[in-house]
Amino acid sequence: MEEERSTRAAGEPAAEPGPAPELKRKNEDGVQDPEDPESTGTGDGGNGISSLEQPLLKRSATLTASHLALVGAKVSHIESLDYEIIENDLFKHDWRSRSNVEVLQYIFLKWAMAFLVGLLTGVIASLINLAIENITGLKMLRMVTLVRERRYWAGFLYFAGVNLGLTFVAAALCVVFAPTAAGPGIPEIKAYLNGVDTPNMFGAPQLIVKIVGSIGAVSSGMDLGKEGPLVHIGACLANLLSQGGEGRWRLRWRWLRFFNNDRDRRDLITCGASSGVCAAFRAPVGGVLFALEEVATWWRSALLWRTFFSTATVVVVLRGFIEVCRNGRCGMFGEGGLILFDVSGVTVRYHAGDLLPVTLVGVLGGLFGALYNHVLHQVLRLYNLINARGRLAKLALALAVSVLTSAGLYLLPFAVPCTPCSAAGAAAASCPTVGKSGNFKQFNCPDGFYNDLASLLHATNTDATRNIFSTGTAGEFRLDSLLIFFAIYCVLGLLTFGIAVPSGLFLPIILMGSAYGRIAALVLARFVRIDHGLYAVLGAAALMSGSMRMTVSLCVIFLELTNNLLLLPITMFVLLIAKTVGDAFNPSIYEIILDLKGLPFLEPKPETWMKDIAVGELAAAKPRAVTLQVVERVSTVVEVLRSTPHNGFPVLDRPRPGVSELHGLVLRSHLMAVLRKRWFLPERRRTEEWEAREKFSVDELQLSPEELDMYIDLHPFTNTTPYTVVETMSVAKAVVLFRTCALRHMLIIPKFQGLEISPIVGILTRQDLRAHNILGAFPLLANKRKVH
Amino acid sequence: MEEERSTRAAGEPAAEPGPAPELKRKNEDGVQDPEDPESTGTGDGGNGISSLEQPLLKRSATLTASHLALVGAKVSHIESLDYEIIENDLFKHDWRSRSNVEVLQYIFLKWAMAFLVGLLTGVIASLINLAIENITGLKMLRMVTLVRERRYWAGFLYFAGVNLGLTFVAAALCVVFAPTAAGPGIPEIKAYLNGVDTPNMFGAPQLIVKIVGSIGAVSSGMDLGKEGPLVHIGACLANLLSQGGEGRWRLRWRWLRFFNNDRDRRDLITCGASSGVCAAFRAPVGGVLFALEEVATWWRSALLWRTFFSTATVVVVLRGFIEVCRNGRCGMFGEGGLILFDVSGVTVRYHAGDLLPVTLVGVLGGLFGALYNHVLHQVLRLYNLINARGRLAKLALALAVSVLTSAGLYLLPFAVPCTPCSAAGAAAASCPTVGKSGNFKQFNCPDGFYNDLASLLHATNTDATRNIFSTGTAGEFRLDSLLIFFAIYCVLGLLTFGIAVPSGLFLPIILMGSAYGRIAALVLARFVRIDHGLYAVLGAAALMSGSMRMTVSLCVIFLELTNNLLLLPITMFVLLIAKTVGDAFNPSIYEIILDLKGLPFLEPKPETWMKDIAVGELAAAKPRAVTLQVVERVSTVVEVLRSTPHNGFPVLDRPRPGVSELHGLVLRSHLMAVLRKRWFLPERRRTEEWEAREKFSVDELQLSPEELDMYIDLHPFTNTTPYTVVETMSVAKAVVLFRTCALRHMLIIPKFQGLEISPIVGILTRQDLRAHNILGAFPLLANKRKVH
Repeated sequence: MEEERSTRAAGEPAAEPGPAPELKRKNEDGVQDPEDPESTGTGDGGNGISSLEQPLLKRSATLTASHLALVGAKVSHIESLDYEIIENDLFKHDWRSRSNVEVLQYIFLKWAMAFLVGLLTGVIASLINLAIENITGLKMLRMVTLVRERRYWAGFLYFAGVNLGLTFVAAALCVVFAPTAAGPGIPEIKAYLNGVDTPNMFGAPQLIVKIVGSIGAVSSGMDLGKEGPLVHIGACLANLLSQGGEGRWRLRWRWLRFFNNDRDRRDLITCGASSGVCAAFRAPVGGVLFALEEVATWWRSALLWRTFFSTATVVVVLRGFIEVCRNGRCGMFGEGGLILFDVSGVTVRYHAGDLLPVTLVGVLGGLFGALYNHVLHQVLRLYNLINARGRLAKLALALAVSVLTSAGLYLLPFAVPCTPCSAAGAAAASCPTVGKSGNFKQFNCPDGFYNDLASLLHATNTDATRNIFSTGTAGEFRLDSLLIFFAIYCVLGLLTFGIAVPSGLFLPIILMGSAYGRIAALVLARFVRIDHGLYAVLGAAALMSGSMRMTVSLCVIFLELTNNLLLLPITMFVLLIAKTVGDAFNPSIYEIILDLKGLPFLEPKPETWMKDIAVGELAAAKPRAVTLQVVERVSTVVEVLRSTPHNGFPVLDRPRPGVSELHGLVLRSHLMAVLRKRWFLPERRRTEEWEAREKFSVDELQLSPEELDMYIDLHPFTNTTPYTVVETMSVAKAVVLFRTCALRHMLIIPKFQGLEISPIVGILTRQDLRAHNILGAFPLLANKRKVH
Repeated sequence: MEEERSTRAAGEPAAEPGPAPELKRKNEDGVQDPEDPESTGTGDGGNGISSLEQPLLKRSATLTASHLALVGAKVSHIESLDYEIIENDLFKHDWRSRSNVEVLQYIFLKWAMAFLVGLLTGVIASLINLAIENITGLKMLRMVTLVRERRYWAGFLYFAGVNLGLTFVAAALCVVFAPTAAGPGIPEIKAYLNGVDTPNMFGAPQLIVKIVGSIGAVSSGMDLGKEGPLVHIGACLANLLSQGGEGRWRLRWRWLRFFNNDRDRRDLITCGASSGVCAAFRAPVGGVLFALEEVATWWRSALLWRTFFSTATVVVVLRGFIEVCRNGRCGMFGEGGLILFDVSGVTVRYHAGDLLPVTLVGVLGGLFGALYNHVLHQVLRLYNLINARGRLAKLALALAVSVLTSAGLYLLPFAVPCTPCSAAGAAAASCPTVGKSGNFKQFNCPDGFYNDLASLLHATNTDATRNIFSTGTAGEFRLDSLLIFFAIYCVLGLLTFGIAVPSGLFLPIILMGSAYGRIAALVLARFVRIDHGLYAVLGAAALMSGSMRMTVSLCVIFLELTNNLLLLPITMFVLLIAKTVGDAFNPSIYEIILDLKGLPFLEPKPETWMKDIAVGELAAAKPRAVTLQVVERVSTVVEVLRSTPHNGFPVLDRPRPGVSELHGLVLRSHLMAVLRKRWFLPERRRTEEWEAREKFSVDELQLSPEELDMYIDLHPFTNTTPYTVVETMSVAKAVVLFRTCALRHMLIIPKFQGLEISPIVGILTRQDLRAHNILGAFPLLANKRKVH
């Protein structure tokens, strides 16, 4: 399926990547119909529009839209998803028209799928943790042994070499097999659930590369997390399950046909994304709320329950793994990778006097978050240029970052003095620790002393977080160590995210944020009466909220991480402040990435100026809609399918001479199925929706000249009830309708019809309703926007 | 505002309460236009419809809709709410058209309101708890003293007398001042958020009666909870805050005008409902999810965060009260009323072997829940007949239930033998307890013995729940005591809910369910390896899920109550089973009540048969839509407003002779404002939406004959962009559009327009799209429904 799409995209003239930034373009884009829309328009658009009270807006360009976006690091053709229920006679699209047995099969399968998604996500997350902990543990043990033997250079070479090798595995897999597996994948999931289908995103190669790549990348000690990739892994699993597998190896089980539609796949991918978050943080409710708040565009009560079922399954699986590993049967694993933070035993008390320093933490967190977003945006633009130079450039970039990381992690601990264990207070029972985990790493220090920076740098990222979050350890870390830690992780966080390995944003930001929180606690020591570990949590929350702008889900994730309800109000307070401060500067990091990739995401709220323009004006700025007659020649249909990339075609009817009516909308996929099955004399046979979805190219069709001269009766294939708007409808309200009803096409009908007037003004799609594209065609609206 | 509405309702001919059950009614309902729709229809409906492929459905009756519903115990006229953004020139409806300062004021106020709703709900909930605990404590102390003195009859008379008095206060307040304050109020909130405005529901009298009545009713020992009423209290607070107060005492602060619209009030009432649940169970996340899953129809990410802010405020307030009361400064209060259950210290372990008994608990819970719904439905129907007989009948019913309750609570403990404290195991340190709270009530037993049934019955409902939930007390309760407890609470729960006092459903079901869980644990003792207190929790969850059919929110509420993440999977398992079993029999209890009250709730999914009927057919079954010309005589407008109760009127335009176009939709409220301000020659002045919302009767207008002869230009008042559907649109998709876009009116336009054809086929409202009403007009569809 994905291959098919990219083939089609390749056949079209290339256009520049990302959304078109120029405003004064007129039909340069090859995707568009080359006819001049103003001279060949259906001629009725102006008719209805002129009856509007306000003067016509001056239009300076045609409404053009790029159907290309950056997927992974590659410019690809993207498609919209169709969540509308298509009502026609021949293709069953609605499960409610099924028999009772089929409905039961469907319901059973829906729950079984949700369970499987949770189960597999949980198992894979556990195995990833196991692998990372063991690889990192072995690496660290050997390195520390070399350091203890004072063979510093050998230690460095060993450390950097192993890291380089692990990075190479991750990056090479990404570059060669699945470029879309790089990065977190969350923006693409968000776009998918908004209705944008990105090719090669949720397949088996992506899944495998993401798993192996994530293990390699995280084990190599780079400043990235497995949390974002886990969300993508959950989504991949959901997609593969709903399809019954990938490509040629796909299961052809009859029950699975129910899932071969965009609506059910969307729901399952939502379950997958929640399961991923849940697996990352062991936060079942947080996972559901993450999907609800950040990822999903459409939400239903029923989905809430199914998502929760998936995340609960994940929690049970993780719990089982922890039980199994408690006895040390999992190597270096222990309970390590799964329990990030536990303060449930700590009694937290805070008073009104704590409000001021906590507010400060929130405000600064918001500022840092916004700054981080800004700088990361610039770095990603630069990296896009580098990555565009080909596979070797991508690989080189990843390896360079790996060497830089190794150098930083290995060398910096030598810069700080050793701390005597006695300074660490009561918590120092096991001080110093030599080996894979523990709060007080000895590293290069004599017995009785520990290196606090090594405790943070020579561990997995999860371990480091646990160390820095640990409570009752106010004196453990020196201010200069924390400042070095913060600085190196700021730099590494910015440099690492854009490279071609699976990487998550959660953990880098948590690490930075927790260091920032500890620093704040040390600086404000005089006013601080809360535990420094809690300050680390609050700092992490502030920076996350300042950068990602999620609030409820973060709050619940932290609630479930800390397992302490008493922390809720103060966490919420910090999150709210940081989000407010951050929002004053720039959008959230995911929105920045979405925009950078050129994914046509529909925002929940229409822009203010959208109420000043009518959909009829948009339609007039587009090429004439390609329509079909309700009984149409085969050759015309083939020609239309060949010459346009459109996905839906309005079908017109002429019940009486001179009268033209809108009969409905017919989908490309249905036309293709009809052509392939040669239903040229309509045979009344029901076809399942999935039969129409098996895509093939129109060029593969071998039709004889006789066949081309025959007619197709489109009556049984046409969706006779498409959503329509009158041409005077404001774009603001049309956008609301488009988004809330999850449409792919919106037909515009004239205000007054009459004889010999086309019953259709135009057809709008997602791209036409995006603020950026509309402003391209109507630049005057942008001025209005500024005046407001 | 509410007074206005009921006046209008009273002026109309009375119709029977609830939805019209007869199918073959033709224009009996005085609310409808008396003209025969078939002879005077605009004559175009059939035109477009005949072009449909399928044959016309035989219609046997006119599509009629009752605008009456049972609110409280009174039949009232109900209105729909308008959540659509009205775009016209003169009434600002959209905050985005405001200035920057106004936007900031609005945002500040929105958050301040959310905070205030949380704060006040928290304070009121704490005070209610305080009052209930103290009143019940004093009552119990005196009663127990009398029993210890063996003055059994005096004890009974005292106990029953005090209960009767408390019930009298609650019921009299309800009956005289606020009939709508009876019951939980949750169904009405659910209907409100679905777009149904019930009069006199969220005002100051309701708030006060609900608070005082709830204290009285719960203190009187009746089998009802304060949880449902707290949700209603939160919603009342939200509504009053958004209006700036009630009726004449309303604040006229300029900032508040932003909230004088249905959208913002809806959002705030959602916050109020979540705060109520949070205050009831001290479950901030559970409260939000309750609103999301059970109460709200429309949801946005932004609302998630605001709701959570409210509930977090509630938690802080509750926490503060607990801190204050910890030192015993609150009389008998202690921590009692607020902490229902705490097993966070208990280590829970369960194995695969526990799955079978737990499954059984779930299945039986679902069956019991469905049975409870069924019987409660019958009881409520009977009670409606009694309550309809007037105030005295309502009062008598409430008092009778109170006497019955007192008799049961007082007398039944005498029926069980005393249990030696030694049997209670390690938990019996304080055994027996004499007085207000404690697990082992001595009551009529000698020293060293306790009466286990008295422990459950002689306490507030919250205390009883805590006792029955308590862990490590497997031997505390005898099987016969639990059976008696379960039986009496089944009977009382069914009899108590419908009486005229504020009553919640949560606690009665929790009590029944926990008893059921303990009984199950005792019966299955051989297979049970989990603590019996946990079985009580699981039993309560199963019965709640079986009756209320909520799942995620219940699960999270129990999670937050037990503060133990380990219980999550097993709770979820039980909830899922119970819900599935219950759904096989009947709808949830709230849906039953909604239906019983005749509230026109729009279900999330359209019925299967709705795709077989077009909106044009619905419109043809209705009286002709009342339209206005775009420049209309004042007298016509006045006549139309007087003679019809409609809320919106399509406005037609005649730009050229013979051509009639749909210009838009004008609202009754806007017409009224125009008439009152005598803008007969259009004066270009912006009016705030709230100015139009100040309702007055059209009969109050004093217009001179000259004025009546003048014209109104409706151009600036008309919403030129109403949502329209083509007459061939299937009802299924129209319902989806109507619900997702939260419409109040949906205009139907003809498929083909042409000269001299009306540009409007009809106008559909919420009532016309309800399955029940459509089936009344098209009974053949019901047969189709069965065939499927």
